[in-house]
Amino acid sequence: MAKTLLSRYPWISSPFIVGAPMRVMSGPELATAVSRAGGLGFIGPGAKTQDTAADLAEASTLVQKAPGSSTLSSTHPLLPVGVGFQLWSDDLHIASTAIEKFRPCAVWLYAPRQNDEFDTWSRRIRDASPETQIWIQIGTLEEAKNLLKAAERPDVVVVQGAESGGHGRAKDGMGLMALFPEIADAMSHTSIPLIAAGGIADGRGVAAALCLGASGVAMGTRFLAARETRISRGYQDEVVRASNGAVSTTRTLLYNHLRGTRGWPEAYSPRTIINKSFLEQQEGKSFEELKKLHDEATKAGDLGWGPQGRLATYAGAGVGLIHEVKEAADIVCDVQQDARRRALSASTAI
Amino acid sequence: MAKTLLSRYPWISSPFIVGAPMRVMSGPELATAVSRAGGLGFIGPGAKTQDTAADLAEASTLVQKAPGSSTLSSTHPLLPVGVGFQLWSDDLHIASTAIEKFRPCAVWLYAPRQNDEFDTWSRRIRDASPETQIWIQIGTLEEAKNLLKAAERPDVVVVQGAESGGHGRAKDGMGLMALFPEIADAMSHTSIPLIAAGGIADGRGVAAALCLGASGVAMGTRFLAARETRISRGYQDEVVRASNGAVSTTRTLLYNHLRGTRGWPEAYSPRTIINKSFLEQQEGKSFEELKKLHDEATKAGDLGWGPQGRLATYAGAGVGLIHEVKEAADIVCDVQQDARRRALSASTAI
Repeated sequence: MAKTLLSRYPWISSPFIVGAPMRVMSGPELATAVSRAGGLGFIGPGAKTQDTAADLAEASTLVQKAPGSSTLSSTHPLLPVGVGFQLWSDDLHIASTAIEKFRPCAVWLYAPRQNDEFDTWSRRIRDASPETQIWIQIGTLEEAKNLLKAAERPDVVVVQGAESGGHGRAKDGMGLMALFPEIADAMSHTSIPLIAAGGIADGRGVAAALCLGASGVAMGTRFLAARETRISRGYQDEVVRASNGAVSTTRTLLYNHLRGTRGWPEAYSPRTIINKSFLEQQEGKSFEELKKLHDEATKAGDLGWGPQGRLATYAGAGVGLIHEVKEAADIVCDVQQDARRRALSASTAI
Repeated sequence: MAKTLLSRYPWISSPFIVGAPMRVMSGPELATAVSRAGGLGFIGPGAKTQDTAADLAEASTLVQKAPGSSTLSSTHPLLPVGVGFQLWSDDLHIASTAIEKFRPCAVWLYAPRQNDEFDTWSRRIRDASPETQIWIQIGTLEEAKNLLKAAERPDVVVVQGAESGGHGRAKDGMGLMALFPEIADAMSHTSIPLIAAGGIADGRGVAAALCLGASGVAMGTRFLAARETRISRGYQDEVVRASNGAVSTTRTLLYNHLRGTRGWPEAYSPRTIINKSFLEQQEGKSFEELKKLHDEATKAGDLGWGPQGRLATYAGAGVGLIHEVKEAADIVCDVQQDARRRALSASTAI
């Protein structure tokens, strides 16, 4: 693991597991549980940027008072969780005010309307909290090259493969196996550590990503099935149930639109588990009708998800690797242990 | 590496590198060079099934007379190269006659019209040459499950990710990072070794695939840039030049049709490097016009390939990892060495 990472986040253990900042779903409870287990948990963007301050405040409280927190809080002057923002929809002023107040150890920036927004946000965040590290998520070689030309270099780059759940590159994405090494080559003259994301849900994927050159791995979908995640039971059950992500998930804007979410830059689209809304759209049902049925399903509680459901179920193509809901700490530790075993086994076999 | 593989192909060294059976391009010279270097080289399907016998005869001669061949030929009663067939287009009778005569150590079956063709071919091949191992290439979990129900179990299964070049799954493919572990789980109760393919072009990908659970790795595109490959210089130059496979390659049937190749089962489509034929199709040029320009380009020699070219340039999304033409033996050895280093480094880092 890159030494910069170890020195910045002294509580982390190896291999470096990151809890991705899933919008709303990655709350303070999940983020602190991941960090406490030796990973780095990110709080996701809020429904509104205003919500982030409350999440950071809660994380701050959790770090101070929860068992085991002494290690975490005494070793680091910053808040030992990160926080993510969607640049196209989040408010920089509100975000930087919260960052200045709570000083999270890392801020994860994603999905600008224009590339130079990364610079604007990075500069403002570094002014607000100089020791906070800037993480930037990309999914293409072109974005990597743009980062190399940027005025404000990120401290960490997250490389997201096409396997990922939630929002990713709409059309120019690619599987990590081919994408990651090419981006790593393009950035090899920098000392910026790369984190792999997308389709990784167990120790095999973590060990594989490290072989590709990653300094750590971010997981989103795997943490959808963590007890601490801010998610409906129906959604979580569906993540555990679903298999064969290659065909049971797809990229579509439909669920964004059904939820009333519009405005994502067109470079992005989300991967979601397919259910009746998508299938009936394919069969030709009108958006108006789908929307009406969707809105009724929101009142059905946990029955709104699943093969007969109609609600958005953002998840990655690795969903078939997830078989149970566990505590976040167990996910981190089990994945780490499995990754060590896999890497050792591969290394001794050859 | 699975012990069955080592005992069947006693000349192979670890990690197990396989030269994929690329149609026409993987000829006897390439296949024997890969096997001689400690891998397993496959001869690709011929333009006609009849061509395979001549290729096998030449491989047989090369194994006997070439330097270093003593190790290869004395250790194994079968021909130490494999041969591939496209089931939808190849003739089983002609194929099995050649297999009976030349006894290749392995036969790689791909792209049936119907699933039961795997059984028909496997039975006939096992009758013709009982010690020849049956390899079957799949790209989906569903195909894996079908193999488990088949009357004739394959000896080896190749799992091809969506990153692969040439023909792969048209619509239900997925990146290896998510696909491979899920298929491995579905087949874990069998002792069938799995080979990973698709987007792997260097030691990083090989080490990563082993961590995912592969017993070895098949590479196609990387061997397009081998000196021994039966390929035009213009094509090969383009493989070396091209980068950013996520956007410089695409899946399209256009080049098949321009070449007059029709009849592939619709589950499959090929990944190819984009050039003027595809770009002008996107702009609305008619097939007739594209075909005329394509046919003229076939007379332009090596200028028919490249960004200004019009000819089919099948290649995988890992094309940006390939920077030079090398001898096949150097590719095998360099990749093996790099893979060992990467796996060791990942294992000691965590």
